[in-house]
Amino acid sequence: MRGYTIDEMQIGQTASFGKTITETDSYLYAAVTGDMNPAHTNHEYAKNTVFKERIAHGMISGGLISTVLGMHLPGPGCIYISQTLKFLAPVRFGDTITATAEVIEKNVEKNRVVLKTSCVNQDGKIVTEGEAVIMPSKA
Amino acid sequence: MRGYTIDEMQIGQTASFGKTITETDSYLYAAVTGDMNPAHTNHEYAKNTVFKERIAHGMISGGLISTVLGMHLPGPGCIYISQTLKFLAPVRFGDTITATAEVIEKNVEKNRVVLKTSCVNQDGKIVTEGEAVIMPSKA
Amino acid sequence: MRGYTIDEMQIGQTASFGKTITETDSYLYAAVTGDMNPAHTNHEYAKNTVFKERIAHGMISGGLISTVLGMHLPGPGCIYISQTLKFLAPVRFGDTITATAEVIEKNVEKNRVVLKTSCVNQDGKIVTEGEAVIMPSKA
Amino acid sequence: MRGYTIDEMQIGQTASFGKTITETDSYLYAAVTGDMNPAHTNHEYAKNTVFKERIAHGMISGGLISTVLGMHLPGPGCIYISQTLKFLAPVRFGDTITATAEVIEKNVEKNRVVLKTSCVNQDGKIVTEGEAVIMPSKA
Repeated sequence: MRGYTIDEMQIGQTASFGKTITETDSYLYAAVTGDMNPAHTNHEYAKNTVFKERIAHGMISGGLISTVLGMHLPGPGCIYISQTLKFLAPVRFGDTITATAEVIEKNVEKNRVVLKTSCVNQDGKIVTEGEAVIMPSKA
Repeated sequence: MRGYTIDEMQIGQTASFGKTITETDSYLYAAVTGDMNPAHTNHEYAKNTVFKERIAHGMISGGLISTVLGMHLPGPGCIYISQTLKFLAPVRFGDTITATAEVIEKNVEKNRVVLKTSCVNQDGKIVTEGEAVIMPSKA
Repeated sequence: MRGYTIDEMQIGQTASFGKTITETDSYLYAAVTGDMNPAHTNHEYAKNTVFKERIAHGMISGGLISTVLGMHLPGPGCIYISQTLKFLAPVRFGDTITATAEVIEKNVEKNRVVLKTSCVNQDGKIVTEGEAVIMPSKA
Repeated sequence: MRGYTIDEMQIGQTASFGKTITETDSYLYAAVTGDMNPAHTNHEYAKNTVFKERIAHGMISGGLISTVLGMHLPGPGCIYISQTLKFLAPVRFGDTITATAEVIEKNVEKNRVVLKTSCVNQDGKIVTEGEAVIMPSKA
């Protein structure tokens, strides 16, 4: 249970994790964060919004990125330094979101790695994009 | 159920939401995102980490920020454009995290508002900080 | 984080909270309360009932009333003294239930407030009605 | 899977259900109802309240009563007409609450039964009491 060290990570290397985000996911996420925004939890409100229905919390896709970093690239031992997120499209209940991280920069001296991170839905549409900075495990 | 418009938001205006983040929260969050990183879910692994115990997912504090924006400042109708997050300290099970957003910039023409966002634990230590860009409801 | 005092509450003042009650909500509620009544959790049983399908636990609408009282009217600091509930119609999975509380009586000496409480579904049908007695925060 | 008919219910008959109410129960209940009142979810807030710590949602004990009625007395087929609840003491995380219902009145013509309902904690202290009116299954 040890992730990659910086020497084991290569520019261009990628890893992904995908999950179908359900109504249940969004409701449990609301529980964890307290975010009962009616856009996520109230169908009568939501049908009068631009999305016409309840949508999942956008920040869930941020969570999927963290899954990729902490479990796969580089994996366990990874220290999360920062993340930027642009929310480009809604995540609807039942959408399958695939988060991908790609190594784009390595600073071996500081043991820091920059990854391009994006979340794409089942139609290939980017729902979230940004960059992560992490410190991989040293050994 | 309508949040503030940009005209109703003032530079310096703040809103907060606080919640005690429990082991249950972290486990439900793991369920939603698939982030079963042993740092969060495996005590035997975690006791050999720098934190000596399982810690909550850092991105949960990102979720608390979203709660403040979507429910309080500006509240319902808010469109989330982007978020930056620096993870400065761990969130331990049982920590009470208070997320605060403060309006620091308004662009009335583009209907865009920039907020400084920070999450602080019960000891006043900043665990996460960054900036959000949102579009408030127009009417 | 302090709710209204009795002086800040007026006869006729109202507050509401609405939420779409899902199968997940009913199942989590069953988990919390142990109420595994087949009317809520067994489709084969439920299809032979008068409702023809599983329905949500009626007491969930009682919970939505408590949300209004504890978070909005009067909000934090509120002590819940009593509640009466008449169950008038079923809550089906996917129904959006809006709970409303209205101040109908104030006893400033005893710091007690009576509120009319009702829960209405997306078709305007009253599913639950009754009265709450609470003590607002004193300062 | 059929509960008692009114003829099978006797004045003085009782049934009970007990459960240890955990922090997790209270957090899941908050999820279902949206009740993120800081008295239940924010330890820093709660330690300055009269209870000195987060407490469970009082309405959970109402749910335990519904469990007794819908599962045991009279059991499946029971239609819930009304419930009164007096909240007499807090339910703390870890308290074991036993809900008991006792038949106190039968109206065979209208097929209505009144039950005295009470919830008692592990120290024998009554936390909730009231009355339920139900219609048992007819056959």
